[in-house]
Amino acid sequence: MLTLEKIQHAAHVLEGVARKTPLMPAPTLTKDCELYLKCENLQLTGSFKVRGGYYKISQLTQEEKAKGVIACSAGNHAQGIALGAQRSGIKAVICMPASAPLAKIEATKSYGAEVVLVDGVYDDAAQKAVELQKEKGYTFAHPFNDEDVIAGQGTVGLEIMEQLAQAEVVVAPIGGGGLISGIAFAVKSINPNCKVYGVQAAGAPSMYTSLEQKQIVELPSVQTFADGIAVKQPGNLTYDICSRYLDGVVTVSENEIATAVLALVEKQKIVAEGAGAVSVAAVLHNKINLQGKKVVCVVSGGNIDVNILSRVINRGLAATGRSVKLTVQVTDKPGNLKNITALCSKLGANIVSIYHDRTQIAADITSCNVEVVLETVGFDHIEQIKQALNEAGYHTL
Amino acid sequence: MLTLEKIQHAAHVLEGVARKTPLMPAPTLTKDCELYLKCENLQLTGSFKVRGGYYKISQLTQEEKAKGVIACSAGNHAQGIALGAQRSGIKAVICMPASAPLAKIEATKSYGAEVVLVDGVYDDAAQKAVELQKEKGYTFAHPFNDEDVIAGQGTVGLEIMEQLAQAEVVVAPIGGGGLISGIAFAVKSINPNCKVYGVQAAGAPSMYTSLEQKQIVELPSVQTFADGIAVKQPGNLTYDICSRYLDGVVTVSENEIATAVLALVEKQKIVAEGAGAVSVAAVLHNKINLQGKKVVCVVSGGNIDVNILSRVINRGLAATGRSVKLTVQVTDKPGNLKNITALCSKLGANIVSIYHDRTQIAADITSCNVEVVLETVGFDHIEQIKQALNEAGYHTL
Repeated sequence: MLTLEKIQHAAHVLEGVARKTPLMPAPTLTKDCELYLKCENLQLTGSFKVRGGYYKISQLTQEEKAKGVIACSAGNHAQGIALGAQRSGIKAVICMPASAPLAKIEATKSYGAEVVLVDGVYDDAAQKAVELQKEKGYTFAHPFNDEDVIAGQGTVGLEIMEQLAQAEVVVAPIGGGGLISGIAFAVKSINPNCKVYGVQAAGAPSMYTSLEQKQIVELPSVQTFADGIAVKQPGNLTYDICSRYLDGVVTVSENEIATAVLALVEKQKIVAEGAGAVSVAAVLHNKINLQGKKVVCVVSGGNIDVNILSRVINRGLAATGRSVKLTVQVTDKPGNLKNITALCSKLGANIVSIYHDRTQIAADITSCNVEVVLETVGFDHIEQIKQALNEAGYHTL
Repeated sequence: MLTLEKIQHAAHVLEGVARKTPLMPAPTLTKDCELYLKCENLQLTGSFKVRGGYYKISQLTQEEKAKGVIACSAGNHAQGIALGAQRSGIKAVICMPASAPLAKIEATKSYGAEVVLVDGVYDDAAQKAVELQKEKGYTFAHPFNDEDVIAGQGTVGLEIMEQLAQAEVVVAPIGGGGLISGIAFAVKSINPNCKVYGVQAAGAPSMYTSLEQKQIVELPSVQTFADGIAVKQPGNLTYDICSRYLDGVVTVSENEIATAVLALVEKQKIVAEGAGAVSVAAVLHNKINLQGKKVVCVVSGGNIDVNILSRVINRGLAATGRSVKLTVQVTDKPGNLKNITALCSKLGANIVSIYHDRTQIAADITSCNVEVVLETVGFDHIEQIKQALNEAGYHTL
């Protein structure tokens, strides 16, 4: 049974293995509340997963340990189990989809795990893990629906209450629900008045829907760039804990998540993956009433592929009016490009890129489109630029 | 006169204003030494500058405070002085080049400073600041050649010795030399056996050259994307302290800096600007003999424009063989694009972008170039792909 003592025991076992991550004040992110970030992206392996993974392994019998553990993951759980096993001196086999980012595969290998790349997607890798487990007798390490795993993740909650005893609200992401179950249990056991809210991506609202329908629901599909929380169905343990302890679950859109990732990079100088930024997205977009409160957002992980990070930043810039792509129709004669660039420059918009292709298959053979990407200050600025272009005779599409 | 007591006094004054930033272990960055990062990028305003700025302002006379302060900066010093003045309740005027990134201008304004945008480059803004100072009687706040500023920056050194008393080596960036002067003075005063090394960009080696020539040298020009340390000439105070206390100064190339920024994003989940990453660049590229030692790298700041960050990450990926742009010559007939993409896919190289333009002005009218950007594992992988393309009859340029 999950108890506060078990979570405290996990904290004891994790001493010297997991980092006590910093609780960072974030006054420039919002003025609406007194915001702090619990930076589990700065945890070893780049996410909180090592807490549950290592504690789970520590609780295995000698016999189970001797057999080694097997897990399936495209990301954080893989690294968490790999490091946990390495520190415990036992064998770990991790099935990963062959399509996983190279950086994640390399990182998992670097912690000494045997990586089995499986053609296809996550589900194919999961099936392979089950096969291998049966064949070789490995111990299966579930990513979230496991009491030891939940107790390990709960140590995040203990640390929050230690670092900011006056915390009034804790906001954390939900994928399968392991992290928030542990946190909610720990926080409510210590201070029942502290509110705990969960956040899911609008494209993967499995716990949100399950709690609303008061039963565990399996979503037919999930769609979000926050791959760390793209889970179709909560576990029965996590569903039970969430239904008892959470004060609410909210969802955030892809643009809201991208904006949060961007804000964390620009204002807090930290890298969060999509799943790691949903709690901040919920706060920045006023999904929960937090006026004047002391609020802790759990930034659960930072394992984002750098190519994806670039795209997310660009999405965040566009979503906040900080950049815009304009398509300007021009007649095909010299001087137009000069006029357009001069106009942008005069209005204080830096040109990030410009693309002028006369060979486009356009409606009008004597005109063509110029695509220009501008760095702007906000949506008003964009409107001002469009208007100026229109007044100068350039039609923007 | 600079004394340890003065730096301790600065630490006292800064309590509740500057953050005591975390000292983060960085075991995945290198196995050669026991590496820690002093994360001043996680400082308020995104850099250490607020320490010296606020302490400087606190030491002004009532009369000087009443007049307000003026400073000139395109970046970190601007935000440091602006926040320092805001916290002290005095007026700050900051001259910034109009070409400074919009995000930095907005951030400086957000701390309540009056920003004067000056057409031209840094030197034009500096001249304007001098003019305004004369005209209005403001107190001038120098970015580095000032004992109070140096004492403020020195609090970074105090914290390092407090957080890791057994530190054997401290590595920090040098621009004008304010930060490293304060750190070296503090560290050597507490533990004379601890080594202190400075790092400059190879394109802006003003302190390096000055120490080598045993006199203050003004470089004719500086060229580096690490704009925070692009300084032509050290100050006389900072030169004196560096010549007495440093164990050495090394330089790093632009590619080495970009690789370090990338490593910090991917492995440590933190955002450093170029200047902030030079210490890590020096360690990763073995510029200093650190075998087995306890080493602290000061990551001095994280104020990097996100568009620049994307470019630096791409540079870092290319410099480490993690991405490559190949130009493949193909005869202009259907099927070639399919063959090339199939080959890349088979060899495990993800296609980031592909550009096929038949209208290029090429030497041969029946052939054209396909430009493909690939995500790769390393230089060996790139060679393997090139060879496979050549064997399939595709010439790579």
